[in-house]
Amino acid sequence: MTYRITLLPGDGIGPEITAVARAVLEHVAALEGFRIEFATCAFGGASIDEFGEPLTEATLKTCQASDAIFLGAVGGPKWDRADARPEAGLLALRKALGVYANLRPAAVHPALAGKSPLRPDLVAGTDVLIVRELTGGIYFGTRERSADSASDKCTYSRGEIERVARIAFEQARLRRGKLTSVDKANVLETSRLWRDVVTEMGARDFPDIELDHMYVDAAAMHMLRAPASFDVIVTENMFGDILSDEASMLPGSIGLLGSASLGENKPGLFEPIHGSAPDIAGQDKANPFGAIEAVAQLLESLGETAAAGRIRDAINTMHEAGEWTGDLGGSLSCSQAGVKLVERLEAEA
Amino acid sequence: MTYRITLLPGDGIGPEITAVARAVLEHVAALEGFRIEFATCAFGGASIDEFGEPLTEATLKTCQASDAIFLGAVGGPKWDRADARPEAGLLALRKALGVYANLRPAAVHPALAGKSPLRPDLVAGTDVLIVRELTGGIYFGTRERSADSASDKCTYSRGEIERVARIAFEQARLRRGKLTSVDKANVLETSRLWRDVVTEMGARDFPDIELDHMYVDAAAMHMLRAPASFDVIVTENMFGDILSDEASMLPGSIGLLGSASLGENKPGLFEPIHGSAPDIAGQDKANPFGAIEAVAQLLESLGETAAAGRIRDAINTMHEAGEWTGDLGGSLSCSQAGVKLVERLEAEA
Ligand SMILES: CC(C)[C@H](C(=O)O)[C@@H](O)C(=O)O
Ligand SMILES: CC(C)[C@H](C(=O)O)[C@@H](O)C(=O)O
Repeated sequence: MTYRITLLPGDGIGPEITAVARAVLEHVAALEGFRIEFATCAFGGASIDEFGEPLTEATLKTCQASDAIFLGAVGGPKWDRADARPEAGLLALRKALGVYANLRPAAVHPALAGKSPLRPDLVAGTDVLIVRELTGGIYFGTRERSADSASDKCTYSRGEIERVARIAFEQARLRRGKLTSVDKANVLETSRLWRDVVTEMGARDFPDIELDHMYVDAAAMHMLRAPASFDVIVTENMFGDILSDEASMLPGSIGLLGSASLGENKPGLFEPIHGSAPDIAGQDKANPFGAIEAVAQLLESLGETAAAGRIRDAINTMHEAGEWTGDLGGSLSCSQAGVKLVERLEAEA
Repeated sequence: MTYRITLLPGDGIGPEITAVARAVLEHVAALEGFRIEFATCAFGGASIDEFGEPLTEATLKTCQASDAIFLGAVGGPKWDRADARPEAGLLALRKALGVYANLRPAAVHPALAGKSPLRPDLVAGTDVLIVRELTGGIYFGTRERSADSASDKCTYSRGEIERVARIAFEQARLRRGKLTSVDKANVLETSRLWRDVVTEMGARDFPDIELDHMYVDAAAMHMLRAPASFDVIVTENMFGDILSDEASMLPGSIGLLGSASLGENKPGLFEPIHGSAPDIAGQDKANPFGAIEAVAQLLESLGETAAAGRIRDAINTMHEAGEWTGDLGGSLSCSQAGVKLVERLEAEA
């Protein structure tokens, strides 16, 4: 079996963590006996510098022709005032790939509970999966700007809500059977449609799943009051952006988490959830665990669950041994953490 | 001096905490030598039950003719499926009063740091004021709904942004001189206008204020990573709803906080930020400190700063003595906490 994987290292610390991700992929492939053909493309700021635009037609074609895409990180102050923005490339890529469901797990490893900003007693046992709608809503609505005013339109169709809700229900079935749908149905029309569609689908297709609804403001509170009470959360694009970043603080470092963006029969897009961290770029200080977690998610999407399991085991072993980068109080550099993980993979093989 | 104050007790625990708020107002008025004429009106669910609508013309007139308005809380499951919703009354009241700036302070009292969901070392010293735009944005935009889709439009004009930004800058000047403007300028057109307007105003009228900009997702993280680093935050309606509820968790109980909604030369609207808590309504269990804090804000808006100061002193004394309601691990009922506070007011007079 040969997989084509496109690497988009991007900007800032993106290339450093992508190098680790690639090494990990190569090693598990060897252990599990499959092959990977890599293609590497400029993306985001790096692509603006080289080609004048954040996502070129050629890069998109390469992505579309692959089995999965790994993205490092995009953006940085260098391009903040530019006409072509790295972020526009990311939004265009998501839309072109049709990856409408963004899966963002945030689980607190027992060895790391003391690193969370939340009290250890409160955060212990937290294991939440946020399913964020990724190709609709106010991110992709009509925009207007005049000298004196501006507007953004948020639109959702029944179909857009259904397809992401279905993924969330299915994930809940694979986990603890609980789904919390987050909206602002006391104010927004799109939220009322959202709530109707999710409620209907639950009753019709997922009567075994415990479904509840929460307003987005209440969810932002509940995430701090009782984080361990959540199983799967499903919500629209903008709310998901905010809530998943809030949730990403709970495990102790944003450097630990990966995200999977999935569509229908198309290559998925896998990335650590942290940004490009321009302040530490090029210093070999970044935490590569988020990238490695994204690699595990990538392998799962390809059906290579054994390979993903190997990676997760190795991550756990490192957590238990306190083998961390600086953000968690450890002493490993980014590349050292990568080498260590590969050693663990080989040792546990 | 006589002030006309309209009381809108509302639903759930609203009437219980409004009774405490009124008693506190009466006592500080006597101590400071001013008079208050109270008018009490049905509002929210209570008004739906009595008049079929959450905000009647008569109630609005009474509000508009007063010097300040105290609101308990609105809403509850009883009206969740109703055509007329209590929340619609709240939005209509805000709009009709023109209270475009919602000031939500969240400060962590040293005696309560251990009650915060955040680690005490991290949350200590937190004292943030969120200034939320309250009468614009997606809350008041055009809405559409068909069988198959729905939409909400978010619009901001330069003037709407300017007036709320000015209040935030002025508040920062009265505090620690730092303002963080929160937006999503990497995606939204309204946010780009927001950022332009705030930046221009800062450079022109408030060069002494340290201004920075943060994306809303980053702000949701930063609130947990370094809450004490914020001074004043200014943001649009929807982001403010979410971020202020997140911030409201930091002081240890949402029952502690009040909010002030202010416009131009119009009566302000003052309320505790908690909801109507139908689960404990009628049980004399609610924490009245949020309502009492809202009373202090109300008195400040009337220029009665000495009276507000008396209330804040009495609240502090109670915190130091650990005189709390059940949500904070204390044993006082709602009415007992009110009586205690009044005793403290008299004792400290
Ligand atoms: C960079 C930005 C456009 C993006 C988003 O808002 O979706 C990011 O915050 C994310 O969550 O992936
Ligand atoms: C009840 C609801 C409409 C309201 C809002 O979203 O503004 C509430 O959450 C608040 O923050 O006052």
